[in-house]
Amino acid sequence: MAVAARRQPPLAPGAVIGVLGGGQLGRMMAEAASRLGFEVAILDPQPRSPAARVAARQIIAAYDDPAGLDELGRISDVVTFEFENVPAASVERLAAGGALVAPGPKALATAQDRVAEKTFLNSVGATTVNFRPVDSLDDLRAALKGLGAPALLKTRREGYDGKGQAWVRSDADVETAWRAVGERPSILEAGADFRRELSIIAARGWDGATAAYPLGENRHEGGILRTTLAPAEADRSTEQAARDIAAKVLNGLDYVGVIGIELFDLGDRLLVNEIAPRVHNTGHWTQDGCACDQFEQHVRAIAGWPLGPTTAHAWIEMTNLLGPEVERWRDLAGEPDARLHLYGKGEARPGRKMGHVNRIRRG
Amino acid sequence: MAVAARRQPPLAPGAVIGVLGGGQLGRMMAEAASRLGFEVAILDPQPRSPAARVAARQIIAAYDDPAGLDELGRISDVVTFEFENVPAASVERLAAGGALVAPGPKALATAQDRVAEKTFLNSVGATTVNFRPVDSLDDLRAALKGLGAPALLKTRREGYDGKGQAWVRSDADVETAWRAVGERPSILEAGADFRRELSIIAARGWDGATAAYPLGENRHEGGILRTTLAPAEADRSTEQAARDIAAKVLNGLDYVGVIGIELFDLGDRLLVNEIAPRVHNTGHWTQDGCACDQFEQHVRAIAGWPLGPTTAHAWIEMTNLLGPEVERWRDLAGEPDARLHLYGKGEARPGRKMGHVNRIRRG
Repeated sequence: MAVAARRQPPLAPGAVIGVLGGGQLGRMMAEAASRLGFEVAILDPQPRSPAARVAARQIIAAYDDPAGLDELGRISDVVTFEFENVPAASVERLAAGGALVAPGPKALATAQDRVAEKTFLNSVGATTVNFRPVDSLDDLRAALKGLGAPALLKTRREGYDGKGQAWVRSDADVETAWRAVGERPSILEAGADFRRELSIIAARGWDGATAAYPLGENRHEGGILRTTLAPAEADRSTEQAARDIAAKVLNGLDYVGVIGIELFDLGDRLLVNEIAPRVHNTGHWTQDGCACDQFEQHVRAIAGWPLGPTTAHAWIEMTNLLGPEVERWRDLAGEPDARLHLYGKGEARPGRKMGHVNRIRRG
Repeated sequence: MAVAARRQPPLAPGAVIGVLGGGQLGRMMAEAASRLGFEVAILDPQPRSPAARVAARQIIAAYDDPAGLDELGRISDVVTFEFENVPAASVERLAAGGALVAPGPKALATAQDRVAEKTFLNSVGATTVNFRPVDSLDDLRAALKGLGAPALLKTRREGYDGKGQAWVRSDADVETAWRAVGERPSILEAGADFRRELSIIAARGWDGATAAYPLGENRHEGGILRTTLAPAEADRSTEQAARDIAAKVLNGLDYVGVIGIELFDLGDRLLVNEIAPRVHNTGHWTQDGCACDQFEQHVRAIAGWPLGPTTAHAWIEMTNLLGPEVERWRDLAGEPDARLHLYGKGEARPGRKMGHVNRIRRG
């Protein structure tokens, strides 16, 4: 396949940014890109997806549709994605056709397989909990013996917001857990006795420059993120340890764009829980807490612009609005310090991310 | 014509906001509306206008096209406009068809005619320079005698960014000036010995509530706004006088939405220069200086939501990027405290507003 000539970064305003995925992350990315004068093209199988409704162009096609991918690659000066389960073959097709794709295939492949991800993380010195690959019930029994209970069984691939995982608290749970993950290739992770979950949102440009936002502290309910408080209270050594981890991960993946890294704070050290090769729900606080939010930062990184500032000018409590909670817009609209971000989704199914609110505390 | 039943404010997310005009003001309005979960429909004669490229729907039609207007009215829960020279008949047609239009016809009619505007302003106690309507060369001579030189001749209708106006410094200028305004119905305004131009961006909701941002100080070059510094240095009485003027104007017009009011600061008092019944270039600083910017404020007002907070959390220097100055994006992208806002316009004709930059100074 001929490699098309295309503009090299820094991309000038008017250049087209292609996005695989038309959900809320693509939508907020599109808004940031438009503000910098870029055109946005969204590829999503769903017509009138949240992102397509704020973008100049949309391609309605499956994520593995060759014609759709080729068109996206042809019209875009750089292509990115809003979720990590984009088929690797799609990104390979885009790259083979001459498209500039960021983050690159290595980040995607690593983040798509929990065993590959943890293996990579430990190889660059970003420590995780102990883990064992699990391909059978026998593997699971052996892994549990090796790691000790309780341990968490997760599918190697896919699964998000707590889906596709099960706790194994004793030998008696083994068979139930194995069925719970669909008897699919999995990973058993040792339990971590952490005090809290933190996350760091960081970015790396084509030139290797990196930048990281202050830490966020996250609270989950039923496996789904409920709130992020940021900047989190953290001593200097914790902050520095998180930045060191981010730099190791970004450089190790030769990464371009924004990444979200979830961390377990054990009190005396940090372990990496998981990485998301994209803008991240725990970074939404930056929209109202920083001059340059994570969405603009991602666009800057992939467009080859200098990274923006990452300091916070306010303390933010970000709360997700899940399913019918979006009806709280009536009250939230009247809270002076509540900045609402709604995603334009129609059906408010329970647990569905419909929007979020950033409550601003200055001082 | 039957009046259609339509949703009453407060409009729920998912409601459609129709905008007459697809330029940069409509674009930034659309971005704010999307963030609150609204759908945006843009009516503009130009395909792929700046605003249409970030909006869910576009109607390509002239501003006086009956079919286009009827369609906009039918699909919109509220209709607004981004420029004051929308034909009054178009707004009347929309209203007659049952559309909710904000700001209303009175604000539009008042702002479209400089004599009506100044007459209204003085009637509510918002003082302006002295002025005389001018319909002929004889009128102009008499008006100059009455007001004294120098005085400024402007067409009564249309004209912006210094177009359609001429200074009259002596009797000798009279004929040249009259030709310069195209021998059209005009207004002669007495010169004002002002120290600086200020502006106040204010809003009023359907319920009559009002809110005003801190003052901005404006500098023009060649009749076009160059920079706004905000919040402007101003003593408490100046700030209060400006707020009083804003309240008189908003209430006097039974206004709904954001208004821009330009003021001459004479040192001991303020005179109103002109009003713009829409979001305003001198309010762009609010995007990076306030939690709720003028665009969100306008959307909140017309959608019947409570008005947002208007306090500033940073000091901003807003600079317009005119014509080829937009090429400065390369340098500006690397200035950490410069937030770029580009409008996605293709052709950088001299003087054309292509974008702006907000430089943030905290302190």
